[in-house]
Amino acid sequence: MWKVCASVLRSSVQGYNNRRVLPLLSRHLSSATPGATEPGLTVSSQHAGIRTITLNNPRKRNALSLAMLESLRRDLLTGGSQDDLQVIIIAAEGPVFSAGHDLNELSPAHSREKHTEIFDACTRVMTLVQDLPVPVIAKVQGLATAAGCQLVASCDIVVASDTAQFATPGVKVGLFCSTPAVALGRAVPRKVAMEMLFTGQPITAQDALLHGLVSKVVPESKLDEETHRLAQQICTTSRSVTAIGKACFYSQITKSRDEAYREAGEVMVNNLQTEDGREGISAFLEKRKPTWSHR
Amino acid sequence: MWKVCASVLRSSVQGYNNRRVLPLLSRHLSSATPGATEPGLTVSSQHAGIRTITLNNPRKRNALSLAMLESLRRDLLTGGSQDDLQVIIIAAEGPVFSAGHDLNELSPAHSREKHTEIFDACTRVMTLVQDLPVPVIAKVQGLATAAGCQLVASCDIVVASDTAQFATPGVKVGLFCSTPAVALGRAVPRKVAMEMLFTGQPITAQDALLHGLVSKVVPESKLDEETHRLAQQICTTSRSVTAIGKACFYSQITKSRDEAYREAGEVMVNNLQTEDGREGISAFLEKRKPTWSHR
Amino acid sequence: MWKVCASVLRSSVQGYNNRRVLPLLSRHLSSATPGATEPGLTVSSQHAGIRTITLNNPRKRNALSLAMLESLRRDLLTGGSQDDLQVIIIAAEGPVFSAGHDLNELSPAHSREKHTEIFDACTRVMTLVQDLPVPVIAKVQGLATAAGCQLVASCDIVVASDTAQFATPGVKVGLFCSTPAVALGRAVPRKVAMEMLFTGQPITAQDALLHGLVSKVVPESKLDEETHRLAQQICTTSRSVTAIGKACFYSQITKSRDEAYREAGEVMVNNLQTEDGREGISAFLEKRKPTWSHR
Repeated sequence: MWKVCASVLRSSVQGYNNRRVLPLLSRHLSSATPGATEPGLTVSSQHAGIRTITLNNPRKRNALSLAMLESLRRDLLTGGSQDDLQVIIIAAEGPVFSAGHDLNELSPAHSREKHTEIFDACTRVMTLVQDLPVPVIAKVQGLATAAGCQLVASCDIVVASDTAQFATPGVKVGLFCSTPAVALGRAVPRKVAMEMLFTGQPITAQDALLHGLVSKVVPESKLDEETHRLAQQICTTSRSVTAIGKACFYSQITKSRDEAYREAGEVMVNNLQTEDGREGISAFLEKRKPTWSHR
Repeated sequence: MWKVCASVLRSSVQGYNNRRVLPLLSRHLSSATPGATEPGLTVSSQHAGIRTITLNNPRKRNALSLAMLESLRRDLLTGGSQDDLQVIIIAAEGPVFSAGHDLNELSPAHSREKHTEIFDACTRVMTLVQDLPVPVIAKVQGLATAAGCQLVASCDIVVASDTAQFATPGVKVGLFCSTPAVALGRAVPRKVAMEMLFTGQPITAQDALLHGLVSKVVPESKLDEETHRLAQQICTTSRSVTAIGKACFYSQITKSRDEAYREAGEVMVNNLQTEDGREGISAFLEKRKPTWSHR
Repeated sequence: MWKVCASVLRSSVQGYNNRRVLPLLSRHLSSATPGATEPGLTVSSQHAGIRTITLNNPRKRNALSLAMLESLRRDLLTGGSQDDLQVIIIAAEGPVFSAGHDLNELSPAHSREKHTEIFDACTRVMTLVQDLPVPVIAKVQGLATAAGCQLVASCDIVVASDTAQFATPGVKVGLFCSTPAVALGRAVPRKVAMEMLFTGQPITAQDALLHGLVSKVVPESKLDEETHRLAQQICTTSRSVTAIGKACFYSQITKSRDEAYREAGEVMVNNLQTEDGREGISAFLEKRKPTWSHR
């Protein structure tokens, strides 16, 4: 497995000189040892550049147990040809996208150290989604709650069925959704986040769209089609260019305007020096379709 | 009065080990000496955990004079049993929620020191609303302008009548709403805030909802009912758990993603160690309703 | 030209003691030498305090070439009476508001130094729009893409025709819109920005309004009228008061809440000491219309 990881890393950074992507990913490779996972908790397949990872424990409402988190993390980092990978879709089996942490693992029977390990593992997956060099799309039907809602809020793009719902109901079990609030509070206006966090009540897909948690809402019958259409659009672009852009976006967005422009301006100039940057501009000027080397 | 404050402070922090709530509140207790207030400027009552504070100077459009600010501040910190308090509603008597500062107090006849005192008092109330360990809901009918709009934007949750309006019209009297803009600019998109600030024109409740200033809009006839329904939902949760979550939310929201997760992850682990954290998870696993000690 | 610039600077800061506006603007005057421009790339006219700058190269889809950027920059800083200037409208000739950078200038035929010069020039214009002491309104019909979308997102207020569209399609030519993302990512929710950036697909004016990129959408036939109505409202306010407020808004918005209040509170007190601050409050108390000296 770790050989494949190293290959993701290499293939996603080689060919362009971006010192930002490398440390983002290498942190995720070095900071963790592979944990034990149960087989089948997630199912991953890759076709034509699109990897689909499906949360596959509907009987447990796709709870993000330690084993599920590790399984998801492995599938985000490996599986299929890394050289083809252009976009990841996170989907879920059953009526519940994910109900969040497995509360058995958070019971008072477990030690503080165990609890710490769980939240560390969760944060590692949520940040990995954003640190990966490819866009990650959440395809959401049904209900996404607590850390399940956090996973949705952590994805770059979210396509939701019009029957989807989102909630952070931790207050109902005496555990305020403070870590989900990190992702939620950066996706929706504060007053919306606060009402969700304080009451635990769900919001509809339409309200999620209104408030920015979701980028697109479609009828349930169109969810697959629309998500794939979007993924395919991303597949027409250059992997390396998208990787540069994604890393820069998350890096600049919390900085002051002037620092953000200093960073992004330098990234633009570097982007133009890459093989695909040169090819894209040349193709445009020569009125032909570009051929990406993904470098 | 200050004995009661100390009791708020003690009861809201005892029972769980959260080093963040204590300094937030103690700053509000230590940094100010109680000012003179006129009786009846605000009316406060508390029932079943819900304290309702009503701005009660409709003849002066509920202007936030120094005396009104002090009266509001006192009612936020004291009154009713602190051990029962779970949520505060800020309401207003009359057709105007609040028209903001009393311009008589800002006239050139007063000294720079007096003006400084007024803005300091205003900032103290606005930040106290967010630093309190219980959620604060604004219930808004009619018009909220300038510092009145700032008060709305400072509350955690806002329920508005469909006839409510919001404006920052300081430019009309030569005083740009720069302090209201601190709260407004953190609640709505920048272009919306800018248009409100530069033109002074009001926006409707529906636009306020669209842009995130308000969490819910209801017909005027349902305003009381809907606000209370929301407050009652909050009353079913644990005071201490909600206090932990509120303090963490405002603390992490301006930090970088990784710093925010470090902080929130630690808060989650601490939350699980509290009496109510342990009770909530245990009750869920044992399929029974939790009984909160609020510790 | 530079004498006129100095006059903007002087007239916009004299009469009130705001140490924040001066360094903002002087940076824009000192950091650049006037570049060569082609005549007619932009057309500027000023009437009754409203300067309208029109991008005027529809044959090239109003591309933001170096010469166009310099022409726009000159028109932002000079032209018409600086003492009357209260608001700037940026408009465009033809069906495309602006298609962004001139890709001829970004071709591999040009040096890295040339590319750097172009992004520096672009950043200088985008930040100048926000650092100017007067509000800048974008009046958008048709399509605004890449740096053209960035220009829209950089304006304080945006009025759009209901036929307008917005896109960041850099991925299609191998150049991720990383600098446009600085402005876009501060105007709309992240998931909306990400979908635009990763797919390059346009969003409608209505979606732009929903997500905060645009402050107002009107039928194309009303675009001029509505934009002017808004500009005229701004002309009824005091230039100096608006300048204080604009500078404070952008300065405080990225700070922590408490730092933001410290800064904004001081700005309010200073605002009250200005000639127009004193006049505005006095006029209100004396129930008469204020007469602004714009100081």
